[in-house]
Amino acid sequence: MKHDLTGIFPYLVTPLDQEGRLREQVLRDLVNHLIAAGVHGLTPLGSTGEGAYLDWPTKKRVIQIVVEETAGRVPVVAGVTNLTTPGAVREAAQTEDLGVDGILAVLPTYFPLPDQQQVLDHFRQVARAVACSISLYTNPKFAAWDFSVETLQELCREDNIGYLKDASGNIGKLMSITTTLGTRLKIFSATAHVPVFVFMLGGVGWMAGPACLIPRQSIALFELCRLKKWEQALEMQKQLWPLNVAFQKYTLAACVKAGLEMQGFPVGAPLAPQKKLSEQGEKAVGDVLQHIQEVSLG
Amino acid sequence: MKHDLTGIFPYLVTPLDQEGRLREQVLRDLVNHLIAAGVHGLTPLGSTGEGAYLDWPTKKRVIQIVVEETAGRVPVVAGVTNLTTPGAVREAAQTEDLGVDGILAVLPTYFPLPDQQQVLDHFRQVARAVACSISLYTNPKFAAWDFSVETLQELCREDNIGYLKDASGNIGKLMSITTTLGTRLKIFSATAHVPVFVFMLGGVGWMAGPACLIPRQSIALFELCRLKKWEQALEMQKQLWPLNVAFQKYTLAACVKAGLEMQGFPVGAPLAPQKKLSEQGEKAVGDVLQHIQEVSLG
Amino acid sequence: MKHDLTGIFPYLVTPLDQEGRLREQVLRDLVNHLIAAGVHGLTPLGSTGEGAYLDWPTKKRVIQIVVEETAGRVPVVAGVTNLTTPGAVREAAQTEDLGVDGILAVLPTYFPLPDQQQVLDHFRQVARAVACSISLYTNPKFAAWDFSVETLQELCREDNIGYLKDASGNIGKLMSITTTLGTRLKIFSATAHVPVFVFMLGGVGWMAGPACLIPRQSIALFELCRLKKWEQALEMQKQLWPLNVAFQKYTLAACVKAGLEMQGFPVGAPLAPQKKLSEQGEKAVGDVLQHIQEVSLG
Amino acid sequence: MKHDLTGIFPYLVTPLDQEGRLREQVLRDLVNHLIAAGVHGLTPLGSTGEGAYLDWPTKKRVIQIVVEETAGRVPVVAGVTNLTTPGAVREAAQTEDLGVDGILAVLPTYFPLPDQQQVLDHFRQVARAVACSISLYTNPKFAAWDFSVETLQELCREDNIGYLKDASGNIGKLMSITTTLGTRLKIFSATAHVPVFVFMLGGVGWMAGPACLIPRQSIALFELCRLKKWEQALEMQKQLWPLNVAFQKYTLAACVKAGLEMQGFPVGAPLAPQKKLSEQGEKAVGDVLQHIQEVSLG
Repeated sequence: MKHDLTGIFPYLVTPLDQEGRLREQVLRDLVNHLIAAGVHGLTPLGSTGEGAYLDWPTKKRVIQIVVEETAGRVPVVAGVTNLTTPGAVREAAQTEDLGVDGILAVLPTYFPLPDQQQVLDHFRQVARAVACSISLYTNPKFAAWDFSVETLQELCREDNIGYLKDASGNIGKLMSITTTLGTRLKIFSATAHVPVFVFMLGGVGWMAGPACLIPRQSIALFELCRLKKWEQALEMQKQLWPLNVAFQKYTLAACVKAGLEMQGFPVGAPLAPQKKLSEQGEKAVGDVLQHIQEVSLG
Repeated sequence: MKHDLTGIFPYLVTPLDQEGRLREQVLRDLVNHLIAAGVHGLTPLGSTGEGAYLDWPTKKRVIQIVVEETAGRVPVVAGVTNLTTPGAVREAAQTEDLGVDGILAVLPTYFPLPDQQQVLDHFRQVARAVACSISLYTNPKFAAWDFSVETLQELCREDNIGYLKDASGNIGKLMSITTTLGTRLKIFSATAHVPVFVFMLGGVGWMAGPACLIPRQSIALFELCRLKKWEQALEMQKQLWPLNVAFQKYTLAACVKAGLEMQGFPVGAPLAPQKKLSEQGEKAVGDVLQHIQEVSLG
Repeated sequence: MKHDLTGIFPYLVTPLDQEGRLREQVLRDLVNHLIAAGVHGLTPLGSTGEGAYLDWPTKKRVIQIVVEETAGRVPVVAGVTNLTTPGAVREAAQTEDLGVDGILAVLPTYFPLPDQQQVLDHFRQVARAVACSISLYTNPKFAAWDFSVETLQELCREDNIGYLKDASGNIGKLMSITTTLGTRLKIFSATAHVPVFVFMLGGVGWMAGPACLIPRQSIALFELCRLKKWEQALEMQKQLWPLNVAFQKYTLAACVKAGLEMQGFPVGAPLAPQKKLSEQGEKAVGDVLQHIQEVSLG
Repeated sequence: MKHDLTGIFPYLVTPLDQEGRLREQVLRDLVNHLIAAGVHGLTPLGSTGEGAYLDWPTKKRVIQIVVEETAGRVPVVAGVTNLTTPGAVREAAQTEDLGVDGILAVLPTYFPLPDQQQVLDHFRQVARAVACSISLYTNPKFAAWDFSVETLQELCREDNIGYLKDASGNIGKLMSITTTLGTRLKIFSATAHVPVFVFMLGGVGWMAGPACLIPRQSIALFELCRLKKWEQALEMQKQLWPLNVAFQKYTLAACVKAGLEMQGFPVGAPLAPQKKLSEQGEKAVGDVLQHIQEVSLG
């Protein structure tokens, strides 16, 4: 692995026009904007990036642009979201070939739901298909499955599985994982988490939608955690928290895209049938962003 | 619309080799076998056909083969399963161009879940993208959304939306739909249903996995219902029911594929991470098939 | 067992004043009204009767009054709803001592949820505590457990377990039960069911809230089923169905109580925190009742 | 209010013999044992105390004994678990009359589920029925409802509602509550929480089952938090965490009761249909307790 992954990794949105075509220049601008703001890595094609909704040609182009525009300044960890093992294996290999530093492996489900043996086999095969680092992704609220601690232990036998991006919001589960696996599997927190607490548990970073909108404040939070200034970090977290609340009330991609539009990036709306943020939601996100700017930089 | 859809429509499985490539000849053989058995239509790329798991090139080839091999002998209604509205619109149009008689429109979900307005907009746009008949599909157990009766009423304003394939197993919901919409929206029952009761409610057919394995008995059941011999039909239904039970206990595609292998069609296993039927499951399905043969043809 | 239970058994509501005290005379009037209308049995203290919400002294008084006022004209099957096995055993014995003809055994849950062994042990002990007939009750939507077919088979070894009141609305599950257990366990349908289909499957009766409001029509439906006039029965069912829809949309006890108030029985509101029916709900129930009167007796 | 509630409040189990009768002396012994160990309060009749399963005479006797034996040495906060508002109001008043310092108000549900207005009305009426302090309890996993932040704000208008015992395990929800309500509503963490993080968020105590078994270690954890030694507290938390894991895997009352039996308190098994801890569970709990003793006092 070229990089140790740590710090703030915004989930890049995928800028789309009304016909669902990629707005390439907007994506380039966003990459440069976030790197200039100091983020430690970029994560295109996660949930916020609508990785589950896009076809492969669009996803391929997103990866090419992000890798090219980043030009090695920060690591790029691209989402691979595929319902089948052969599909995920193929997509992972192609993604690696495009020059990413790591892969965020997402297993969505239709039905039937996979049991732990199927989960284990799936991610093991994906890991073995590439040499780059793998971040395992789990979001039990939507995919209706979750890694057991035992499955994670087993997956840790694969050298290139190094990270877990857990979107459960369940801090007790993370406590169980870290007391069992120690530092072998590094944890990234998610939008649903209170990241300060994940950092206290040894978490190495924060992959999340909000960091697209408030990269500087997210980095400041990370720095406080890195220096183990836990109480100050928690104070800062409290200032940023209303954004998480808005994101959970309205919906992730819609919120981040609407917020970026307010900041001057014409990223468009999420792909239908996902909804554009409602007027009420826009006002809520706008108010929270305004408030965070004032408080954090005031 | 060229055909009124009615009768037994087996959900065709998609024969795959161990690398996940389509076994074209097996699919052709299966088409001919089922038409020879007397089925009234064919439904490739439904849930049993792994429509949610296959990529477009494979799906396209499945449709081409089924349409070509059927050669107009029975109507072909192909599944269109796509997470986005633009994707579904495009895939529906391409599917129609391949010569199908109808489309079974499936909306799987990642997250966020769609509300009724989003559901309405999605299916309306899919319907308007084609001239052929549309069968709406809902499976609330897995997709976590369902049509309200009001949404179905609204969708009935689209001339080519003619059918509902309801996989909820909820006969009360069907009662509400038929008492509200009468014969405007024709109902197909599913594996989870007791089809005799759906036929009593005015249902026009049965789209299901079991009909791949027991086409003649499924047709006999339909004939009894067509003649309104309800008590005889229910007696016959009781003989076939253990197959539904096995299918719900084990899993649909795995069961149908294993049963077809027993009948001499090398259709392979479902795509990973879906599981091949367990030995215990194979025995259960084998025993039930044996029993049904003996009773129904004895 | 003194009686074979069969036919229409309205779930009696429990008339309460604003302080939650039993209105004894209203309960007596309701008993006489329903028996005069021709119902085949009475079921106090089911879900509609708020059996889960009332304390034992109130429940005891309800049973005494219903038994006394019924005076043997029809069988009385009283609900026993208790979270513990010792509590249910004691309450069942006391209920039997009050002179009922049968017990409807309900197992609500707090947490943890019981597994099949615990379910089996619980109902077996309740059955062994009494000599009268036991109707097993299951409502998996609310209690988060359900009988497996195997558990029901095991429970059928107890001579006095004769009936299953299934409120799942899942007709496929009933099909599995009746194809496995035949006539050993007799089925009562519930508000969530389309009773005509349960009668076709061999069901012996309908225990439900609606029968409090439309006893004559419910009896007419039963008679058509008894005569195996299935298509006429289904036509009649369609006329009554909107009441089931209203009951599922609003809530059961609130709907039945509001409807009875309209019919001149001052039964009061359900115990808080349950809600009185909203104005909108009252209008819906009132309209449906009016319509049913006109159509069915017109 | 006589006391500010803060610190470690073990959820007392209810010692029962095989007939379900209270073992009074064992309860007295347990009270003295825990007070001698230094706990800051006692909470009989919570979930671990089977408050939902016991009848009022038993609950009344439990409260009398705990109040009498405690004799004012620490505050006693007794659970009031009742499905109805009138029942909860009556039970709260009677509980206060028995001399408790506070009430933990639990609203279990049968069906229908309450909306926020019903939740608000219920707890407001319970609060107005007593003068002592009220701790609101929520366990959305089992009761299928939860307080919205807005409902909590409204409930804070009642002077004697001072605390929230949140068993959701959802640290993000607590973050939302504390950033909105500040110190007006004091938080107690639960077995499902990582209490160190709740203390960082301003939590005042830990009401939980494990503290029955490891009171000294729980108190040591609290002391570290009180001194804001967060990293040391988290190290200690990691040592205790396997007990939480065992409690969530097996079940709460069964685990605590089995562990107390190992420690010499013959508290019996939970009331059927709840299960006695399995042999495997006993071994797990025994091993964890042994390990904690060695590590924490070693």
